[in-house]
Amino acid sequence: MKTIPLILMGCGGVGRQLIQHIVSCRSLHAKQGVLLRVVGVCDSKSVVVASDVFTRGLDDAFLTEICRVKSSGSSLSILGSKGGECQIFSNLESVKKVVDIASHLGRTTGLTFVDCSASSETIEILNQAVDLGCCIVLANKKPLTSPMEDYEKLVSHPRHIRHESTVGAGLPVITSLNRLLASGDPVHRIIGSLSGTLGYVMSEVEDGKPFSQVVTEAKCLGYTEPDPRDDLGGMDVARKALILARLLGARLNLDDIKVESLYPAEMGPDKMSLEDFLSSGLSSLDEGIDERVKVASSKGNVLRYVCVIDGSRCHVGIQELPKDSPLGRLKGSDNVLEVYSRCYSKQPLVIQGAGAGNDTTAAGVLADILDIQDLFS
Amino acid sequence: MKTIPLILMGCGGVGRQLIQHIVSCRSLHAKQGVLLRVVGVCDSKSVVVASDVFTRGLDDAFLTEICRVKSSGSSLSILGSKGGECQIFSNLESVKKVVDIASHLGRTTGLTFVDCSASSETIEILNQAVDLGCCIVLANKKPLTSPMEDYEKLVSHPRHIRHESTVGAGLPVITSLNRLLASGDPVHRIIGSLSGTLGYVMSEVEDGKPFSQVVTEAKCLGYTEPDPRDDLGGMDVARKALILARLLGARLNLDDIKVESLYPAEMGPDKMSLEDFLSSGLSSLDEGIDERVKVASSKGNVLRYVCVIDGSRCHVGIQELPKDSPLGRLKGSDNVLEVYSRCYSKQPLVIQGAGAGNDTTAAGVLADILDIQDLFS
Repeated sequence: MKTIPLILMGCGGVGRQLIQHIVSCRSLHAKQGVLLRVVGVCDSKSVVVASDVFTRGLDDAFLTEICRVKSSGSSLSILGSKGGECQIFSNLESVKKVVDIASHLGRTTGLTFVDCSASSETIEILNQAVDLGCCIVLANKKPLTSPMEDYEKLVSHPRHIRHESTVGAGLPVITSLNRLLASGDPVHRIIGSLSGTLGYVMSEVEDGKPFSQVVTEAKCLGYTEPDPRDDLGGMDVARKALILARLLGARLNLDDIKVESLYPAEMGPDKMSLEDFLSSGLSSLDEGIDERVKVASSKGNVLRYVCVIDGSRCHVGIQELPKDSPLGRLKGSDNVLEVYSRCYSKQPLVIQGAGAGNDTTAAGVLADILDIQDLFS
Repeated sequence: MKTIPLILMGCGGVGRQLIQHIVSCRSLHAKQGVLLRVVGVCDSKSVVVASDVFTRGLDDAFLTEICRVKSSGSSLSILGSKGGECQIFSNLESVKKVVDIASHLGRTTGLTFVDCSASSETIEILNQAVDLGCCIVLANKKPLTSPMEDYEKLVSHPRHIRHESTVGAGLPVITSLNRLLASGDPVHRIIGSLSGTLGYVMSEVEDGKPFSQVVTEAKCLGYTEPDPRDDLGGMDVARKALILARLLGARLNLDDIKVESLYPAEMGPDKMSLEDFLSSGLSSLDEGIDERVKVASSKGNVLRYVCVIDGSRCHVGIQELPKDSPLGRLKGSDNVLEVYSRCYSKQPLVIQGAGAGNDTTAAGVLADILDIQDLFS
């Protein structure tokens, strides 16, 4: 049996779903000759570590207990009383412990750090883990959108890192691009709708519904962040665009990307309360969007909020696109990516499907973990 | 530098294109720390082998010469006069030589057999190679559609085999399905248009053009096999469907699949000449197809020639599909696959793009070769 020791970082929705997938796939993975041994689980403050990381992982009952504790809103630190099976470390001590495990396991049995957090504070540990010979699997976009120097360090052993779920959740986007690049098929253009929220909003306004009404509905359906401006500002799409652009070799930073926000600066969270934005700010944007929809429609086009990567240029915002293109036909909250390369020059390679959700995001992370198994003995 | 020794089988369009890709990607792969060492190249009768397979491969000038010789229609055996750099073995002797190399390299440095032929005669060597610890990369569908017993032998070490280019050429179909399966996301339904030829034919008849005219045009455009019945019979699609069904765990053989042929048995190649089929047989099919097109159209549907894999059932033929579905919208010769699983339940995962052509097929093979690099030291 091949054993992959794991340290899981982040116990939010994706992290907890990943733990559940790992537990429920035990017999499936055993049939494939693989054992995923979770030696540690971190939240933002603490780390729970198996009592002897060299010989065993946290058992499935305990992993399930971690999910229960975290979904009830508690901190990992309350698990300390369990004793015997695990050790708890908190704050700075926890970072030291994790690095200590990495230095012991990294070069011997191998160790994989799985970052399902949404924090930019994991990058330091991840970079140390890379130095110590560990593998990295990310759902967290922040480490990959950090300054170029940190990024290059992180991906310095390309076979040791996987990050499918940073773009389009579990959709096979990164995998497919890596395959094209490995085969010497140069990708010269990517255009994609990579926000389920903005995909939904732009396809709904197309039929004449006011922008404010659509955004309010999207919020009610749970499609948006609690403050919809976190979606409407476009920074989440910009991070995904940066990850794709860097994968294609562009040496860009986040602030090199031109990002169109769907609300003006004077309605930003620092200048206007969420209540004011929802009650009056939003509706003041209706006319402008409606006009753009009509102009596009008169040319047989629709508006889509897309990222475009063209050579080493990268921008994010609203574009007019033919109604009858894969992006133009998009309805609902699916993500779509069109990839143009030598092999896909006239007609693009198109990948489409659900691009959000804890289940599919965690499934993508799990597929990444299984994909690095040949590096383990 | 990681070295992957290769034996290439098949010097048709895909095989020659692969050799050209390998040569032209030398510096790209060197940057990634990988060296592809071609130690042998086989056509149906002979094998050319590097003079010392343990220390070197055939050099790039010689590989290019192989492509030249084969594209001029000659046999590899005429390269014998080159001397020094290589050895030529023919017929049975060549099989013995290849197995001999596999037994020496398979368990020491590792060796990958790359089958770009269209022959069912490679299966015996491939199965011996598996026994000898070698890796397998296939563009050839035949070994994967052989009787279940041979198939199970071939895939007995799942991490040692890749075959992306057997379905949809370089489209990331197999890779994506393997990712879903590895993450415990059960795929319960696949529906796809996996023949560029039949995709083109079915979308053209939709606009009222007679079937016979569309097939004749497709033949002129080079979309069909020399005898279009090789496409219209559906067996090529059935082979792809079988590969997908087996990947999902179905224990089926080729003759378990219900295949709808677009021409009746009495017009088969054994009963009617190609000339007669093209001049009179084809046009006698126009009325039947036209009627089905009209019936479908009256319900807002179109006809598509698809494979459907539903649990362990698998069939291939014409289906009525909504005009406004990914398959219904298909135009031209693109392939499309819709995959339904737990994560993609209401809206499918859709993969679309060029599903034929030597360039994209060979690129898919090359990506597979790079994908197994972690098994080599």
